[in-house]
Amino acid sequence: MNSPLQTDLYQLTMAAAYWHSGTADQESVFHAFFRQLPFGGGYAIAAGLESVLEWVETFHFAQHDIAYLGELRTPRGELMFPPEFLKFLSELRLDLSIDAVAEGEPVFAHEPLLRVQGPILHAQLVETALLNMVNFQTLVATKAARMVDAAGGAPVVEFGYRRAQGPDGALSASRAAWMGGCAGTSNVLAGQRYGIPVRGTHAHSWVMSFDEETEAFDRYAEAMPDNSILLVDTYDTLQGVRNAILTARKLRERGHELGGIRLDSGDLAWLSQQARMLLDEAGFAEVKIVASNDLDESIIESLRQQGARIDVWGVGTRLVTGGDQAALGGVYKLAALRQPDGSWKPRIKRSEQSAKSSIPGRLQVRRFRNRSEWVGDAIYDEDRGFTGDPVIVDPADPVRRKKLVGESFDLLQPVWRGGRRVGATQGLDEARERCRAGLAALHPGVRRAVNPHRYPAGLERGLWQYRETLLEARA
Amino acid sequence: MNSPLQTDLYQLTMAAAYWHSGTADQESVFHAFFRQLPFGGGYAIAAGLESVLEWVETFHFAQHDIAYLGELRTPRGELMFPPEFLKFLSELRLDLSIDAVAEGEPVFAHEPLLRVQGPILHAQLVETALLNMVNFQTLVATKAARMVDAAGGAPVVEFGYRRAQGPDGALSASRAAWMGGCAGTSNVLAGQRYGIPVRGTHAHSWVMSFDEETEAFDRYAEAMPDNSILLVDTYDTLQGVRNAILTARKLRERGHELGGIRLDSGDLAWLSQQARMLLDEAGFAEVKIVASNDLDESIIESLRQQGARIDVWGVGTRLVTGGDQAALGGVYKLAALRQPDGSWKPRIKRSEQSAKSSIPGRLQVRRFRNRSEWVGDAIYDEDRGFTGDPVIVDPADPVRRKKLVGESFDLLQPVWRGGRRVGATQGLDEARERCRAGLAALHPGVRRAVNPHRYPAGLERGLWQYRETLLEARA
Repeated sequence: MNSPLQTDLYQLTMAAAYWHSGTADQESVFHAFFRQLPFGGGYAIAAGLESVLEWVETFHFAQHDIAYLGELRTPRGELMFPPEFLKFLSELRLDLSIDAVAEGEPVFAHEPLLRVQGPILHAQLVETALLNMVNFQTLVATKAARMVDAAGGAPVVEFGYRRAQGPDGALSASRAAWMGGCAGTSNVLAGQRYGIPVRGTHAHSWVMSFDEETEAFDRYAEAMPDNSILLVDTYDTLQGVRNAILTARKLRERGHELGGIRLDSGDLAWLSQQARMLLDEAGFAEVKIVASNDLDESIIESLRQQGARIDVWGVGTRLVTGGDQAALGGVYKLAALRQPDGSWKPRIKRSEQSAKSSIPGRLQVRRFRNRSEWVGDAIYDEDRGFTGDPVIVDPADPVRRKKLVGESFDLLQPVWRGGRRVGATQGLDEARERCRAGLAALHPGVRRAVNPHRYPAGLERGLWQYRETLLEARA
Repeated sequence: MNSPLQTDLYQLTMAAAYWHSGTADQESVFHAFFRQLPFGGGYAIAAGLESVLEWVETFHFAQHDIAYLGELRTPRGELMFPPEFLKFLSELRLDLSIDAVAEGEPVFAHEPLLRVQGPILHAQLVETALLNMVNFQTLVATKAARMVDAAGGAPVVEFGYRRAQGPDGALSASRAAWMGGCAGTSNVLAGQRYGIPVRGTHAHSWVMSFDEETEAFDRYAEAMPDNSILLVDTYDTLQGVRNAILTARKLRERGHELGGIRLDSGDLAWLSQQARMLLDEAGFAEVKIVASNDLDESIIESLRQQGARIDVWGVGTRLVTGGDQAALGGVYKLAALRQPDGSWKPRIKRSEQSAKSSIPGRLQVRRFRNRSEWVGDAIYDEDRGFTGDPVIVDPADPVRRKKLVGESFDLLQPVWRGGRRVGATQGLDEARERCRAGLAALHPGVRRAVNPHRYPAGLERGLWQYRETLLEARA
């Protein structure tokens, strides 16, 4: 499935132009980062690296790819690519150094999630696929973490397949959602491929396929005596709860217990309270109440504030698509070129807004902590280091400066050198644990869903001043 | 890549329960439909059928799938599926009849896009994958059609890969966008796989990789003399236009013409007017102006109203993700079960809102036309037919009734019987032409992006009355 043609055409026309102009081998550094935290939140969860590395691992132009490119014509009818260039492509092996933030790590605006170094033609050819995977998976992992936070300890299960953006939009969303803290998925392929626990209930159609709801419940419980969660809202929700109780009694007589009921419509706060009362009165205090129906973190929080008695949250559409925000606007920017003397020449793109201008240099992120709490991140140029005290400047609000104190560690670690992976491979469960531990190390205000406290993350002061000088020179 | 595990777990637990309760072979009819038109618009464009058929064609539980399912345990630690059921699954061959609206056809709320008939266990196993593909591709084809309409004849090119929801979110979006009327894509794999014209310009990094913008432009034009669109906003947009003109002059001296310039930031209305003036004054009236930067149909319309001089629209994020609306809420509902005597018993799900209750029967959609304009659609039960005049009732607003007159034809056509495709296979270009012709047959008010005229589509009166009777009986 992976293909080097999973790219924007302009990466290939630029490659041809680098090749033609003799600059293809110029060593370059690109950073992938986003400028704004998603969902108006206070953090994001880095994700997508594993998919990127799998894609880079198989990067190779096969004969049918070269044949396709060889047939392409410009709008004016000329051949788009010279045959010599296509021969070059067919022999190309990527030679890149990639440093990356581990999956599951909380990250902030402007921080490089990946740093790609190598011949500019090579570094450019991975841009589109890399951004595609990192943008989407980071978006979903972040959304999941927000929902899990909102649920305050109750499990959040991802049920989004049918509304996801294509089969992979479902599969990689299930993976990212698990990383962000979800307790399971309905997506069976994600279970098979990633070992994520798979969970489910039944559909309205099951109930509708019998004449009576009571019969439908009994039959399901007979087939799944230890794994029944009955959907009670096909006709009348509270009557459905009463019918589920009848089935629960029969199960108990046979030595089994009903797992739960599911509410999928109506006033979930009121209905869950009523259902809880009916279940408790009937002696089924252990039967769980699962709720679904276009939930997101703000609805979950609101339902909890209203005293909803919901034990398990089933979330779908708004998790796997991001809901109101369907894309993370991550970009991939050239930041430095190697000079013939071996030194790095910084590169900058100027924008009308200072915050949208790029950050030059070969960047690294240093995170400072005070005991178990993180206190701030400094983006710095690895070749320049820190100039004096670790003071950071927020590029979106340069008045904000902060001195960071405490222990520190660097976020970007080598993951790829030349043609293969380096460093310890991190499993998905490890990424999930990294996310959990990372969020626990943030001040609670930073995790607030709306108007969060702004975590101090910015440019190391020396880098900030240098960037100002470059911007001034470009003005 | 296709797998029968691309499904929600509950489809498999329901399958086990149908199998256990002896109702697996009960013949059923399900419809896939949506209840609300996306984007507040007046129509949707059906898409995704081809992906569904490709998935159904390869449907088969392989040994590693069975092995995985055989290991699954319930939350209480019991095996989830009995071995006899897994043996049954491993031998299962889908036996379904699918009728569908052709891809590219304009469709409306409540109209079945696919009708799936067969043993209930079989029909249920395709639900999740089917909804996933149809929901997403219909969303994007519709968004594309709206953007193409807003551009009023100027080409709209899809550049969304990097912000799409995963690799397939990009690939199937490129396909749906072409169907909806886009003029090309940047996605090279979509070009290879579907024959869609691929288009592109170059990135800021190209400019930044040279010391001077003029040098960057010259070098690109030398490499791509017949296919250069120069991105002019890396440093200062209007200076960029002047630099592009210098390059255009050199190209002309060598017998070539600059293809265009691209604006990617700033006030696109004003900048395009200024750029047009500079280009025209310099004798480059044929050089096209391409614009990009988070465009959607409302921004395109607004820019045109402001007199923007934009020849080609490059759209990305908001097209391939749906932008503000990231999912079409399509559902798949059981509508009838075959009785032992061969007749069909209708099934209905009651909801607090009449419009959200399902529509019983084996449904078909009849479209009426008056000369070249469509006048309305009647959803009717194929087994009951029309009772009297073709009068329709809008389920979302039952006061609205309308008598349809004119020629008519049925939208759902057989596409799958038993184990294979039937009927003429429709290519992607045919779907694109169907979309174009279909939109041309709608009253312009129906195509209006905001507050459109509501196209008359509803339930055949006899079906409406019958549904009311069923709902009454369930109350």
